[in-house]
Amino acid sequence: MSRILFTGMVLLTMANLTQAADKVVTDVVLGIHGGIGVDKIEMTPEHDKEVRAGLKSALEAGYARLNAGGTSLDAVEAAIRVMEDLPVFNAGKGAVFTNAGTNELDASIMEGKTKKAGAIAGVTTVKNPITGARAVMEQSKHVLLIGPGADAFAARQGLEIVPPSYFSTEHRRKAIEDIWKREAEAKKKRDAGGAALPETPVKKSQYGTVGAVSLDRHGNLAAGTSTGGMTNKMAGRVGDSPIIGAGTYADNDAAAISCTGHGEFFIRYAVSHEIVSQMKYRGLSAADASNDVINRQLKNAGGEGASIVLDRNGNFVTAYNSEGLYRGCITRDGKIQIRIFEE
Amino acid sequence: MSRILFTGMVLLTMANLTQAADKVVTDVVLGIHGGIGVDKIEMTPEHDKEVRAGLKSALEAGYARLNAGGTSLDAVEAAIRVMEDLPVFNAGKGAVFTNAGTNELDASIMEGKTKKAGAIAGVTTVKNPITGARAVMEQSKHVLLIGPGADAFAARQGLEIVPPSYFSTEHRRKAIEDIWKREAEAKKKRDAGGAALPETPVKKSQYGTVGAVSLDRHGNLAAGTSTGGMTNKMAGRVGDSPIIGAGTYADNDAAAISCTGHGEFFIRYAVSHEIVSQMKYRGLSAADASNDVINRQLKNAGGEGASIVLDRNGNFVTAYNSEGLYRGCITRDGKIQIRIFEE
Repeated sequence: MSRILFTGMVLLTMANLTQAADKVVTDVVLGIHGGIGVDKIEMTPEHDKEVRAGLKSALEAGYARLNAGGTSLDAVEAAIRVMEDLPVFNAGKGAVFTNAGTNELDASIMEGKTKKAGAIAGVTTVKNPITGARAVMEQSKHVLLIGPGADAFAARQGLEIVPPSYFSTEHRRKAIEDIWKREAEAKKKRDAGGAALPETPVKKSQYGTVGAVSLDRHGNLAAGTSTGGMTNKMAGRVGDSPIIGAGTYADNDAAAISCTGHGEFFIRYAVSHEIVSQMKYRGLSAADASNDVINRQLKNAGGEGASIVLDRNGNFVTAYNSEGLYRGCITRDGKIQIRIFEE
Repeated sequence: MSRILFTGMVLLTMANLTQAADKVVTDVVLGIHGGIGVDKIEMTPEHDKEVRAGLKSALEAGYARLNAGGTSLDAVEAAIRVMEDLPVFNAGKGAVFTNAGTNELDASIMEGKTKKAGAIAGVTTVKNPITGARAVMEQSKHVLLIGPGADAFAARQGLEIVPPSYFSTEHRRKAIEDIWKREAEAKKKRDAGGAALPETPVKKSQYGTVGAVSLDRHGNLAAGTSTGGMTNKMAGRVGDSPIIGAGTYADNDAAAISCTGHGEFFIRYAVSHEIVSQMKYRGLSAADASNDVINRQLKNAGGEGASIVLDRNGNFVTAYNSEGLYRGCITRDGKIQIRIFEE
């Protein structure tokens, strides 16, 4: 049955995939995304406003760090922390629920100069998972820590620890309960001998992620990604966000990248590292490389999602095969651009 | 302190790295490794015999599956299961201990034709983690499951479940107790005001992995990797073995790859996917690509380890910057080669 479900999801997703990319923005020092967001039809003026305000605060926080002499790593962490603290994004405070009714968070961060990286997966008590990922990178000899071991490490490092209930928000709780209700109704009909209902299509709002890429005055790139995962995911499921090479990668010879979308596809296609490889070994631009991966490879496979890429010369590009992508960037001289759908 | 430890380890490792690669073996249908093994100085005739016998059984098991019409995926799983069941390899039964005195196992598997993949990390009750990884790939909509969620999934799939004590073997227990004893002595000396002792160098036998790559009669590649991780690893630490793109990758357009060694470096350099990328986008041979990654990039970074690569034409190559690598392969006509050090 799981196999059928999987195929069904892929087909449903494939039918809807669009193909889009923004024009390259030059002289960017910080770019961010807040996930592929909701479909146009679900968008309300209030939600639109809340998303744009959140992206703006995140850009301003990261930019302030850069102006105060901070590194690209500092800017990435600062921008992501802002989004983690806002319930509107699926990361930190606003994390979605698993099928067990828990919130399990993942994050990763990487530095382009040293290729050092840190990540945590399946944590339940770390208020800002991106800071947990950075602590793994800087304060442990490991790259990836998972589960209770990762929570315990974060506590030993003195990071802010919260009860798991901190991540339980009203709107995410309602989203998971709606799914459970639909599942229960479908089961009831099946049990009563009725025809099997078609699988409920995955709503875009069920998966989301936040991420950031930055280039500092020393020419060093950094990237980071943080997520609550996929609504109703199996407890223990980990997507691409904490996987170096999938959801996050940074290499000073090419670019810093953060991805969002249907994580399983991003792992299988090693999307972040694939973009870096095409830039380094095929000589493609950030725009052409991300377009090839997101709008050709992933689109053909039925994998919905997006990437943001900042190359070593400050060119910022986004590519997405979804209807929208919550995204923004700020240039060296402080100009902010924020977008949600094709504009 | 962790930061100092990390730097110390890197320096110690760097000093010892060698550079080696075997000649390409053609017409190979199955290649395997059993980790970078022990240093020559630690090798005994008994251990040598046990390793070679284990590698031979694994090759024979996978080859039998191929001859019975099985796929490359079947051969990879069969070969790895044999090694998981033998206490001599650090995977399955012979898994090393964490610093909490537990055994936490990781594995992944990938199919080159479809780029489907499955992985589990931090499991404690799945007798054959490689079969757990394959179940995630084939029976769930996810790619990576971790911790208790992964154990529960394997149980629901009807896989063989064992008590955690199954993985507690005499020689691995002794290894961890020796480390704890040395650590306690060092602490005692420090507490008594003595000079800090130099960090104990990482023994090769502290990290190990098993892996397999195969090419079937349909021209399809597959790769898999399984491990108990690193002796004395922090509970919750995950290395490259379950990370698609790091420890394992398969792409019918290039090659199937399995890696072993100091996993943190293999994640940061996305080693398996980097080898595939250099083959596809730089046009390098499997030998030149793996040599560049293992013997240049990783060696320069101080990352000890090895890769085995089987390309889509049946060329099998191994590269390692360690003293040895437990490795073997079998050709279409059944000829077996097994090696431990440079031979």
